[in-house]
Amino acid sequence: MSFGDLLPSPRVLLGPGPAMADPRVLRAMSTPLLGQFDPEFTQIMNEVMELTRFAFQTTNARAFPVPGTGRAGLEAALASLIEPGDRVVVAEFGRFGLLLIEIAERCGAEVVAVRGEWGRLIDPAAVEGALRAGRTKLVAIVHGETSTGTLQPLAEIARLAHDHGALLVADCVVTLGGCEVAVDRWDIDVAIAGAQKCLSCPSGLAPITYNARAEAVIRGRRTRVQSNYLDLGQLADYWSPARFNHHTAPTAMVYGLREALRAVHDEGLEARFARHRLHGDALRAGLDASGLSLFGKEPREHRLPFLTPVVVPEGVDELRVRRRLVEDFGVEIGAAFGQLQGKIWRIGTMGYSAQRQLVLLCLAALEDVLRREGHRAAAGAGLDAALAHYTAAGAPGSPDTTDNLGATGIGRV
Amino acid sequence: MSFGDLLPSPRVLLGPGPAMADPRVLRAMSTPLLGQFDPEFTQIMNEVMELTRFAFQTTNARAFPVPGTGRAGLEAALASLIEPGDRVVVAEFGRFGLLLIEIAERCGAEVVAVRGEWGRLIDPAAVEGALRAGRTKLVAIVHGETSTGTLQPLAEIARLAHDHGALLVADCVVTLGGCEVAVDRWDIDVAIAGAQKCLSCPSGLAPITYNARAEAVIRGRRTRVQSNYLDLGQLADYWSPARFNHHTAPTAMVYGLREALRAVHDEGLEARFARHRLHGDALRAGLDASGLSLFGKEPREHRLPFLTPVVVPEGVDELRVRRRLVEDFGVEIGAAFGQLQGKIWRIGTMGYSAQRQLVLLCLAALEDVLRREGHRAAAGAGLDAALAHYTAAGAPGSPDTTDNLGATGIGRV
Repeated sequence: MSFGDLLPSPRVLLGPGPAMADPRVLRAMSTPLLGQFDPEFTQIMNEVMELTRFAFQTTNARAFPVPGTGRAGLEAALASLIEPGDRVVVAEFGRFGLLLIEIAERCGAEVVAVRGEWGRLIDPAAVEGALRAGRTKLVAIVHGETSTGTLQPLAEIARLAHDHGALLVADCVVTLGGCEVAVDRWDIDVAIAGAQKCLSCPSGLAPITYNARAEAVIRGRRTRVQSNYLDLGQLADYWSPARFNHHTAPTAMVYGLREALRAVHDEGLEARFARHRLHGDALRAGLDASGLSLFGKEPREHRLPFLTPVVVPEGVDELRVRRRLVEDFGVEIGAAFGQLQGKIWRIGTMGYSAQRQLVLLCLAALEDVLRREGHRAAAGAGLDAALAHYTAAGAPGSPDTTDNLGATGIGRV
Repeated sequence: MSFGDLLPSPRVLLGPGPAMADPRVLRAMSTPLLGQFDPEFTQIMNEVMELTRFAFQTTNARAFPVPGTGRAGLEAALASLIEPGDRVVVAEFGRFGLLLIEIAERCGAEVVAVRGEWGRLIDPAAVEGALRAGRTKLVAIVHGETSTGTLQPLAEIARLAHDHGALLVADCVVTLGGCEVAVDRWDIDVAIAGAQKCLSCPSGLAPITYNARAEAVIRGRRTRVQSNYLDLGQLADYWSPARFNHHTAPTAMVYGLREALRAVHDEGLEARFARHRLHGDALRAGLDASGLSLFGKEPREHRLPFLTPVVVPEGVDELRVRRRLVEDFGVEIGAAFGQLQGKIWRIGTMGYSAQRQLVLLCLAALEDVLRREGHRAAAGAGLDAALAHYTAAGAPGSPDTTDNLGATGIGRV
């Protein structure tokens, strides 16, 4: 057995996650550790909570990371709210709706699934119908469906849930930091995010926030939460002035998340959302000019700005395309799940990956690889369309991006 | 709101964990990310599994990290094995035995607790008595009880469990990488470790291994595991050639764990265990000479070599001592839980923290702080005893340590 130094090849991560980690986040993660009850560390925890509130646009008392990936955050929410036999309505219109159903079932819920077509929004009337049919503990729904690229409006679903005495739990794993997640304004009771998408932190923590209504349900349970590790009541007691001992804080991940959220704060939410919109639109302009079709029938405002599902053209070997993109260009794009497997690619321009150089690199690489597959498109058409989009938008990305382009000249590689 | 750069003060971490992270681990963690299905990343996963087997001294097919802290690993094991109503015997002789009871109860087990005095070993005859009293699914026991400093022999408990058709699940969170954890030789069915103790990685992953007997129980369940996130069957399918999609791999943590396990492999198990023994013994020689008493009645071979519980002397303010150690010297030692709270300190010399400089620094700092509390001891007695121990052992730590001492001269600060 011999194990060499960790020297991975360079990669441009443009899949559905992990996005490229912001180098400032990686630097923060290599900071020497503090003990978890060190006053300097508890101050860092306080800052992480404050920054989490900022990102979720909330004044909730509860806003902290669950010590696991986004999936752990979802399970923490559902396991802490659901008691055996509770009726739970789950809107399902993609892979991550199916996950919510599975988790809720494992928590002992009586799950009522409101199914929708993959790639479309869910109809609030269908959710309302399910709510009318029985007393419901909570509605669970995916905000950004990473499997299909839809962006589901939540305010009306929240209102319907509350009208029927139910809570709204929203999976915001892919959306936080990339587009509006207005927890208070939309009256979402519980929102869960991921670190490795638009926050550009490595995977491993799940920021969560919940309001007083959700907290009252958690504190008023008749039965014990079936998980110790994912018990939100215990996690909240640890992430509070009581500092009630629970798990050993994943220090380096907390450092990384703090830096990732600080980068969101430094950039500002509006500017960050606009950046994600700009580079996603430029990518889509390029894909369209390359003769590729986007998957999904919803209008622009109901699609994720930073996760673009592309239909694999007839006669093209989707796996070979992805393999060549990685082997020849170091560019990773995503495959698809379930009923969409082999039919679409998913291109993410999230967080640090939402940069002009990377969008142009992706289009150039994709054009080359598709040409080798026999796909016909005018040479450079995708690149020209993306460049034209940047020019028309009058905003060539962040000032830093422009400077880098000027200095390195890699924009036209 | 204003959030500055992450610039924590320097800390010498000599508590019960986190131990100081090895700088090579922190460097590895700042490596740019790979996608989780990238062949270079799956190769890294294979190496992590191979290194995990090495550390656990096992040929088990299943050896991978659970994506959470040690507590997540414990819950993954218990939740994946236990079905509602299963009889589970838990040996409890410290804080982490209590945790095993709590987790097993939340998994729906009928828990039979075999209680022992905190600071003593458990009597195998007591475990046998509990096994005789009813058909038992598994016995859960703590190998190294971090709350009291005991080191529980496991081979006989494993034999008893198997004689009664039960599995043995061992909490090796604090022991892996610091002393013998011979999974195959002792015939342990499931062993769970932590990253932030003797492996000197930041907290956030829980290496686990289990044998074919445990796997058969998991695969033969009649009911679904109550957790999705901590379902060992699903995690094993992801950590296998099938690469069945589950959570998004916590890439940076996997990088860090690989480097931490590689450091164990580079050092060699025997040398690593000897180093932990050496520095722990030197510390205890120094504490003894300083007029301090160790907690616990078991003989040396049944105490953790790298976690030293010290009785707080009469008339000494234990909290003020710990606070002064941090404020004046940047040295963190641990407090205690439950019935031992305020009565003992716990000093860890684990992983990268098991170094001569740090042991001597701790003794010097402690002498000074205790003097200010009115505790009487001959000046320099602790330091001299530790130095004498190093000289008598003829082994001044690792060669690197000696070189550093020579170059910086901090050994006698």
